[in-house]
Amino acid sequence: MDAFASLLRWLDLAGSAVFAASGALVAARKGLDAVGFVVIAVVTGFGGGTLRDLLLGRMPPFWLQDPTWLAIASAVALLVFFLGHRLESRFQALLWADALGLALYAVLGAEIALLAGAQPWAAVLLGTVTATFGGVVRDVICNEIPLLLRQEIYALAALAGAAVFVLLRIEGVWRDPALLAGLATGFGIRAIAIRRGWSLPAYRP
Amino acid sequence: MDAFASLLRWLDLAGSAVFAASGALVAARKGLDAVGFVVIAVVTGFGGGTLRDLLLGRMPPFWLQDPTWLAIASAVALLVFFLGHRLESRFQALLWADALGLALYAVLGAEIALLAGAQPWAAVLLGTVTATFGGVVRDVICNEIPLLLRQEIYALAALAGAAVFVLLRIEGVWRDPALLAGLATGFGIRAIAIRRGWSLPAYRP
Amino acid sequence: MDAFASLLRWLDLAGSAVFAASGALVAARKGLDAVGFVVIAVVTGFGGGTLRDLLLGRMPPFWLQDPTWLAIASAVALLVFFLGHRLESRFQALLWADALGLALYAVLGAEIALLAGAQPWAAVLLGTVTATFGGVVRDVICNEIPLLLRQEIYALAALAGAAVFVLLRIEGVWRDPALLAGLATGFGIRAIAIRRGWSLPAYRP
Repeated sequence: MDAFASLLRWLDLAGSAVFAASGALVAARKGLDAVGFVVIAVVTGFGGGTLRDLLLGRMPPFWLQDPTWLAIASAVALLVFFLGHRLESRFQALLWADALGLALYAVLGAEIALLAGAQPWAAVLLGTVTATFGGVVRDVICNEIPLLLRQEIYALAALAGAAVFVLLRIEGVWRDPALLAGLATGFGIRAIAIRRGWSLPAYRP
Repeated sequence: MDAFASLLRWLDLAGSAVFAASGALVAARKGLDAVGFVVIAVVTGFGGGTLRDLLLGRMPPFWLQDPTWLAIASAVALLVFFLGHRLESRFQALLWADALGLALYAVLGAEIALLAGAQPWAAVLLGTVTATFGGVVRDVICNEIPLLLRQEIYALAALAGAAVFVLLRIEGVWRDPALLAGLATGFGIRAIAIRRGWSLPAYRP
Repeated sequence: MDAFASLLRWLDLAGSAVFAASGALVAARKGLDAVGFVVIAVVTGFGGGTLRDLLLGRMPPFWLQDPTWLAIASAVALLVFFLGHRLESRFQALLWADALGLALYAVLGAEIALLAGAQPWAAVLLGTVTATFGGVVRDVICNEIPLLLRQEIYALAALAGAAVFVLLRIEGVWRDPALLAGLATGFGIRAIAIRRGWSLPAYRP
């Protein structure tokens, strides 16, 4: 299982890189400077995990204890800043990477909450927060109504992935198959929503 | 006094339901989907109490320890989502319920701060924060300048209610009459402001 | 060195007054009422230090432990509210005072983080957060894209000042010369940027 743990570590770093890139792309649309790119990338990448740790009473947050996290997010932000015009054509690829990051953060966030002693329903909620809150802060700072609140099946995919993982864990399933099942659920729902253009119905007055 | 304590518990739950409804009504105006309704309702209902607990160093917050809170806010949000067109005509009633929730949260928030060891002036401030911060976050997420900052006598009513309660308590008055006096002050000021259309003068350049 | 410590205490209070004034000027531009002035002034003045303390796990924050801070920020906000039309012609002076407050908060924030046991790179980051985050919250609440993200060399000046201070301290330089060097660096860079109208290049699609 060492290979799996090492794979997860890499996926975790890749997930924060993907979220940082999604933040940097919004910064590009807003015409910010390089400092703005780094700030938005960091906030998007680590906002969710920070709120989770805050609500669990676990301060300082993970990214203040190991500079790797900030280094990756900053590097991604500067890469997008200088090479953004080439990345824009890869937007579709980023959408799929974002779906993977979403599912991964939901499941890993739920596990961290469980290990910190949260009740199962709270762990599902905190996994969803881990996966989605960074994007909310990104949109609020950039003065847009958060995508989360008005578009596509996004938070629900994270919620479903976290719920499957937590349910399997409290039923006694081992960690790795539970992680895989949660990941597959979250990514699968999000992927179907992307492919078919599914979205939730909006309120009709 | 058991009846009074039980009444307060009911008022407390009703207060969070009212704030959740006010959040859902803003979500309706913005045309969000059902997930957006629930998120905004939860944030509006519990944002103030969460910031209070955060500033007091009391994490995790109350709504992560008992699922009743989230269940009520979510149910209210979905009710507004599906029946919103019927509720819109009841907007005036909601304004009055909101005034009651405001006064109640100001007084109960101040009490929690006092019990946690805050100084009296800080308890007044934290009571006001409890009553008003949820609405600020609601407006910021929905990309509007917070109502609190530009309309009517709202924060001042909460401040006055919390101040009366704290003053009576440090003067040795029993809890229940102090709660009632604080509630009456906060609700009374807000009610007069609503009836007479009072508002604070804005800055004139 | 008693005179120097006392000077620092005065500069610290003056720094929060300056940031409060910058918040109140934005409130004036938005046409808020007196409550809005006070809220924005407090948030601008203490938002950065509060986030720093939060990330360090040091709650309650400093301004809940001594009413002097809130009294100063509120007094400044009301002063601007009632005398704003006279202050507007002094905007240039405020810009320079803001540069001093920026450098001061960056250095003092970094020192607080070091004393709380943060690693050097994290202390530099937290100093920058102390100096800049209040302005970000001010702009987000007032529904504007934060100045920090789209204008001039602001965050970089704070970062440089905090970095010089932290580097000198871990090299064993005494506190007072290190403080002075950090202050001079942060203020100097910001001053040059103001005088020459320097700003960072924005992203070009």
